[in-house]
Formats: sequence, C-alpha cells, structure tokens
Amino acid sequence: MKAYETYDDLPKIKLPHGKEVFISDSTIRDGAQMPGIVLKSGHKVKIYDYLHDIGIEKLETFVYNERDRKAIELMLDRGYEFPEVTGWARATPSDIDLVLDIDEIKETGILMSVSDVHMFDKMGLESREAAEDKYLGALQYAVDHGLKTRAHIEDMTRADNYGFVYPFIKKILEIDPDCTIRLCDTIGYGVPFAGVDEPYGIPSMVQYTKNELGAKNIETHCHDDFGFAFANSIAGYWYGANWSNVTFLGIGERSGNAEMEKLLLFLSRRVEGFDKYNIESITEFARFLQKEVGIRVPRNKAVVGKNVFAHESGIHAAGAIRNPFTYEPYPPEVVGGERVFLVGDSSGIDVLRHKVQEMLNDLIGAHIEVEKKDSRLRSIQKDIQKLYDMEKRVSCISDEEIQAYVEKYYLFMPIVEKDMSRESIYSEEYTNGGSEDDD
Amino acid sequence: MKAYETYDDLPKIKLPHGKEVFISDSTIRDGAQMPGIVLKSGHKVKIYDYLHDIGIEKLETFVYNERDRKAIELMLDRGYEFPEVTGWARATPSDIDLVLDIDEIKETGILMSVSDVHMFDKMGLESREAAEDKYLGALQYAVDHGLKTRAHIEDMTRADNYGFVYPFIKKILEIDPDCTIRLCDTIGYGVPFAGVDEPYGIPSMVQYTKNELGAKNIETHCHDDFGFAFANSIAGYWYGANWSNVTFLGIGERSGNAEMEKLLLFLSRRVEGFDKYNIESITEFARFLQKEVGIRVPRNKAVVGKNVFAHESGIHAAGAIRNPFTYEPYPPEVVGGERVFLVGDSSGIDVLRHKVQEMLNDLIGAHIEVEKKDSRLRSIQKDIQKLYDMEKRVSCISDEEIQAYVEKYYLFMPIVEKDMSRESIYSEEYTNGGSEDDD
Repeated sequence: MKAYETYDDLPKIKLPHGKEVFISDSTIRDGAQMPGIVLKSGHKVKIYDYLHDIGIEKLETFVYNERDRKAIELMLDRGYEFPEVTGWARATPSDIDLVLDIDEIKETGILMSVSDVHMFDKMGLESREAAEDKYLGALQYAVDHGLKTRAHIEDMTRADNYGFVYPFIKKILEIDPDCTIRLCDTIGYGVPFAGVDEPYGIPSMVQYTKNELGAKNIETHCHDDFGFAFANSIAGYWYGANWSNVTFLGIGERSGNAEMEKLLLFLSRRVEGFDKYNIESITEFARFLQKEVGIRVPRNKAVVGKNVFAHESGIHAAGAIRNPFTYEPYPPEVVGGERVFLVGDSSGIDVLRHKVQEMLNDLIGAHIEVEKKDSRLRSIQKDIQKLYDMEKRVSCISDEEIQAYVEKYYLFMPIVEKDMSRESIYSEEYTNGGSEDDD
Repeated sequence: MKAYETYDDLPKIKLPHGKEVFISDSTIRDGAQMPGIVLKSGHKVKIYDYLHDIGIEKLETFVYNERDRKAIELMLDRGYEFPEVTGWARATPSDIDLVLDIDEIKETGILMSVSDVHMFDKMGLESREAAEDKYLGALQYAVDHGLKTRAHIEDMTRADNYGFVYPFIKKILEIDPDCTIRLCDTIGYGVPFAGVDEPYGIPSMVQYTKNELGAKNIETHCHDDFGFAFANSIAGYWYGANWSNVTFLGIGERSGNAEMEKLLLFLSRRVEGFDKYNIESITEFARFLQKEVGIRVPRNKAVVGKNVFAHESGIHAAGAIRNPFTYEPYPPEVVGGERVFLVGDSSGIDVLRHKVQEMLNDLIGAHIEVEKKDSRLRSIQKDIQKLYDMEKRVSCISDEEIQAYVEKYYLFMPIVEKDMSRESIYSEEYTNGGSEDDD
C-alpha cells in the first residue's frame, strides 16, 4: 500500500538520460522579439541579475546595434561567472565578426534555416546545396576564429530531415564535434510523443541526432504555436538532449517559447536529486517583467500567476483550509508565492468562515473561533449570495467588504440589540435559516 | 526528397487509437471556479452558443443554486442537440436528486476523490473502504434512477492506483460498464511520457484502465500546475482515451485546465481526416470572454493571442511579408484571427517598407512601390531607431505615427524642397546614410 500524505511522500521522477541537463536563456533575444515589447538595456541587465540568481547556465544576445552592445557591456560589467553571455549571428562572416569584436564572448549561435521555404522564399537561396555551403562556411569561419559554436537548425520540424538535415548535421559535427546542435521547432509543429517520425517528432529528432549522428550537445528551442513548447522541451531532456533554450514567461515571437519557469519548477520539484537552481525568486521575476516591461501575467498562468495558490470555490477552499496539500501543487514559498483565500460566487461556508474569523480576530485583537453554524456567519453568507443571485456583482468580496460585514454582524448589531434588551445574538431574525448544503 | 512548401504539403498525424475522440466542456463548471471570475447566466448561455457553434459534444454544470438552475434553463431553452447538458454531483443521493430534478439532464458526473489526503483530510472519511462504499452507493443510486454516469476519479495522480484505485474502478465498471471513467489530474502532477508508472504517467493510467479494466469510455481532466495540462490531454487521446474534459482559455482553479482551443486546433489542423469541429469563431470566443467576463488573454497565448499572427522583428517580418508560410503556423482565417505587421525596436527595413508603402498608397489612393533603398524610407528608419536608442520609447510605432512620417518625408518635404528649388528628394541631407545591415 502506497500513501502520499505529504509532499515528501510523492516519488521523484528519474530522467531516463540522467540529470546532467542545462538551461540556456533567450529572454533578451527571442523574448525581446515579442511584438509590442521593448527591452531597454536596464531591463536586460536586471533580467541578467535574475537569471544569475536562479543559476541559469547560458544566455544569448544579439550584437547588432548600439542598444545590444550597451546591454552586453552592462552584463559583462557584473562579472558573474554565469550565465555565460553568448552571441547570435546569421551565417555570414560579417555577422560573426560582430561577435568577435566582443572579446568576452566565446560562443556564438549561427542561424541555419533548413526548411525549403526558409532557404528559398525567406533567404532567396538557389538550392539546398547553396544553403549548406553558406552555413558550413560560416561555421568554419567561427571555428577558425576560435569561437565555440551552436548550430541553430531553424524550422527543422517542417524540413526534410532524412533527405537533407541529418546529413547536413553530420557535416557540422565533422567541422566541430563539440558544436551544440539546436533543434529549432520554429513554428511549433513538434510533438512530444515517441513513435512520431519526421518532421514532427521531438523524441525521434533528439534520438537520431544523439545516437546516429553522435552529437554530444543537443539543445531544443521550442515555440508554442500548437501549445506543446514546454512539453517538447521536457521531451528533449527525456529522450537525450542536454540543453533547452527557453524564455522567461515564454515571451517571444507569436505564441512565444517554452517557459523557463515551468522547466525550473519541473526540474527542481519533480526530478530526483535535482537541486542546482534557486527558484525562490521566480514570482518576483515575473512581477518585475509585468511592472517594468508591461508583460501581463495572466492570473491562471502556471507557476507565477496570481491564482496559483488562490482558493475561492467551495470544495477546494474547504480542503485547502484543512490541509493545503489537498489542493496545492507545492508550498507557495517554493516559488516566492502567496496563499490567498477569496470569497466569491463559487465559495462555500468554509472559506467565508475562515475569512470572517481572521477579520474578527484582527479587529478585536484576540483569538475567537467562529463556528460554521454561527447565525451571524450565515447572515453574511446570505447577504453575499444575494449579491451574486441578483447578477450585478462580477468580482470577489474584498477584504474591506468582509470587514464591513464583520463590523455589522459581530460588532455593531450585538450592541444595538443589547441596548434594545434583545435576548440573544443568535436570534432567527437575522439568521434567515442559512443553508448547510454547500461545504 | 520531401519538400514542405505549403500547408497542404505538411503530413497529417494519425492518432494511434483512431480519430473517434470527443471533447467535453467544463468552462461553466471548473472554469467558473477560477478565483476572481463571476459567470452570470447570460455569460453561460453565450458560452453555450459558442460551444454549440464549434460542435463540442458535451458540457457539465453544477445544479446547486438558483443561478446554476437559471443558466441550465436558458441553455435547454436553446433546443440544441449538442453540447449535451450533463450534471455534476458529490457522491451523495441528495446531490444526485438535484440532478434528477431536471428532467432534461440524462447524465451526471459523480465526484470520487481517491487520494488518501482527499479522502481523509478533505472529506473526513475513516478509511479507503468507507470512501469506496460511499462512492459505489452513490453510483448505484444514479444508475437505479436511470442516469448515465461519469466517475470523476479525483486526484488520481497522487493516489495509490494499483493498491486502491484500479480495483475500485473495476467495481465501478461492474455496476455500470458504460460509465465514463474520468481520470482527474487534479493537482497537475501527471506527465505525458510513456514508461512513467503510477501515480503520474497519463499514458500508463489510460492504458491500464482501457486494457486491463476494460473501460469503454475514458476521459482525461488535466490541470496545469506543472504546465502539462494540454500535452496530457493529447497524451490521453494518444494512448487510448476517447474523451477529454477541458475549459476554454484553460480557465479554472489555480493554474487552470487544459485549453480547449489548443485541443481544437491540434485535432482540426494536425490530425488526419479530422474535420468535425468548426474553429473559425474561437478568436471571437476568446475576445468575448476577455471583454464580457474580464479574462485577460495574454498577447502571446497560443491560438487566440493577439500576437499569433503579428510580425515585428527583422528576419521574421521579412519572411512573413515574402511568404506567410515561413513564419506562420497556419493561415489566420483558420481561427478567425488577423495578420498584423508592427514596427518596433526589433524591426528591420522590410516591415517598415511594407508599412510605409501601405500607408503612402492609402493616403494618395494609388499604387506606388517603395524601394528598400529609398532614402526617405531610410530617413524614417533612422528617426525610429533614434527613438529606441534614446531608450525613452517602450511601445511599437503606431499607424498614426507612420502616417506622420509618411506625410513628412513623402508628401510634405518634397513640396517644401520644390518651393526652395532643391534638386532632389534623394538628397543626403536627410538621408543620414541609412544602414543596410538589418534585414
């Protein structure tokens, strides 16, 4: 018999290829490409601080314009050992020269688009051979100039992998056996299930690149157009990739990228013996991006949303009050979050009792237990239900309103009644026979 | 050689267990439990209209209070054949009686929590046996009263499946072999990978329930606390479930549920021969929930976010202008979305050229081709780059601003210059040597 009664009881997961996996960041590169977002250099260096605090191993950045270079200078000035600042270049010597201009950058990604539509329609190249020549030439140039390399195999999930991409990756590895092969699911067509072959199966792409081509370093870069970005990133690790390139909050082109915070949570909370990242600041990190950069974090966003530890509805709130383990995925402090109880249209008596008792004790500065059957509590419940039944109310009951109810029914009414020589504060007159059926 | 040059070239995926899969909605039940959300009966019936338009097969609702019953009445008044309205009950005859009170409801879900913490700490039951008795008693009661049944196996991903849950499901199927077994990943602990056993592996849970226990109808209900909700829902179908219970936009408790719109898109666009759902209205549906219920849809949300077909950054926008297939996952009209080109800090000359030409042609009512090397265009680019270099600008360039630039450089300046007998509008004076390096 197995019993999972606390978080510690829940078994950890083993990654089939071991836990030597790493995260590289693209928040200030692909993330900053999100339409409508402008990252100033001050934002970028603050993001760099958060990534350092978490323990992210690597970061990539453009090196094109004044703003890019200013941000790089500010990041390097921090003197952090990690994240390592790496470059990003198109497959031309002139782009790679821009990376070489910055002495402290030792590694660059090189964009190598491999789908026919990207090679022909986007880049205007004549043939697959012409593309391959261009890419391998740039790679050779980077290697000759002493850079570590990362091949960004763009749009691989809509490419002829067996006919073109895999033979091409083989040639990359002949030039640089240490090259990190970034499998880019550029338009989000990848699926995380084993048994799906080209061009979509992330498991089969990773396995072929590792086992048949012998790549030592494989990285996924997954977009979320079909909703699989995060699952595909974990599928990468699951089937043998050792890197995943992601952005915080999943910001990026179109539907964005795999979310770094989800990777961090999964690795830190679910994988056996995995404790190298510090994730206590990720809620604060999200709030920084919301406040300073204007990236709205939806309430129901996993890991960092406001609702992750919020309890309003009847059964859920009742459970969470008795034992948070019933309806919480992990303790709020793991990610620097906060548990909140809310009273709304789906609330039952338990959460209302909890809030009323808390407020009453706050107001009078003592500890009093409010009973579920207390007629005053039931009166407050009736009043609130009426608000929602009339369908004019579309938000939760605020703490100020709870306070007003508590003052009315617990503090003010008994005084009035005493003055009027009434018998008991439990009088039916304002109890209204509160229902018992909703806990 | 394989070449994927249009959407039609991209191969479709076959679900291993065939495409006889269905979607049931919980937007007005679990979705409405989202803290901070209030769904009025008018909202609910409008949601019902959208679900009908899409072709969703089934919907579940509470039947507890006046508001619940009013919404049910309004939905039934529509007279739609689908979604079928089904009930939701705790495992007590009194709850089931509330469902039975509504003649038109022929099926009910029954909550059967199976993790120890839910049975003992939440429900206060004495033993697993007591829980089993309670659940089977309620099931028998529903069957005896002619209801179709659905067993909500709550918190199964933190339960003793081999020791308790599977033998219990066997007893359920002995009472009602047609019962839909809903595998609830209540706290989001499920993972979508084959080879993971209890309590987390969605594939193994589905396979065991189907193959070893012989369930005919298996449904997943997945929460997103660890980011796997959508992938787990598809994993359900992949390994043999025929139903998935989801909410639109993934609204619901904490991090919410699997997103219906992602399921719809995946099934409709990616699965071979799957064409039963009408998904053209899903962007409008999302906007309705944003506008009328106050559920913010983040820009980078897959399928329905504003950015799904927005192009701003250099390489991406340039590609999308030449051929949208380069950087779009599917044509916008598939989901009723819109393609937009934006000029921002990550834009190159191509998207600016596109926007300026469009504006110029709008203003003068004729078709003029603006060349990439046109000095006026380069002047506009310089002006915009300066705005971002100064780091005071944190948003895209609006259409009004583009209009002002076009008026200044294309309409007004030439007149001024003509009046001043200047030689050419291509004068270096305001060209400032616009850079050529960023497309």
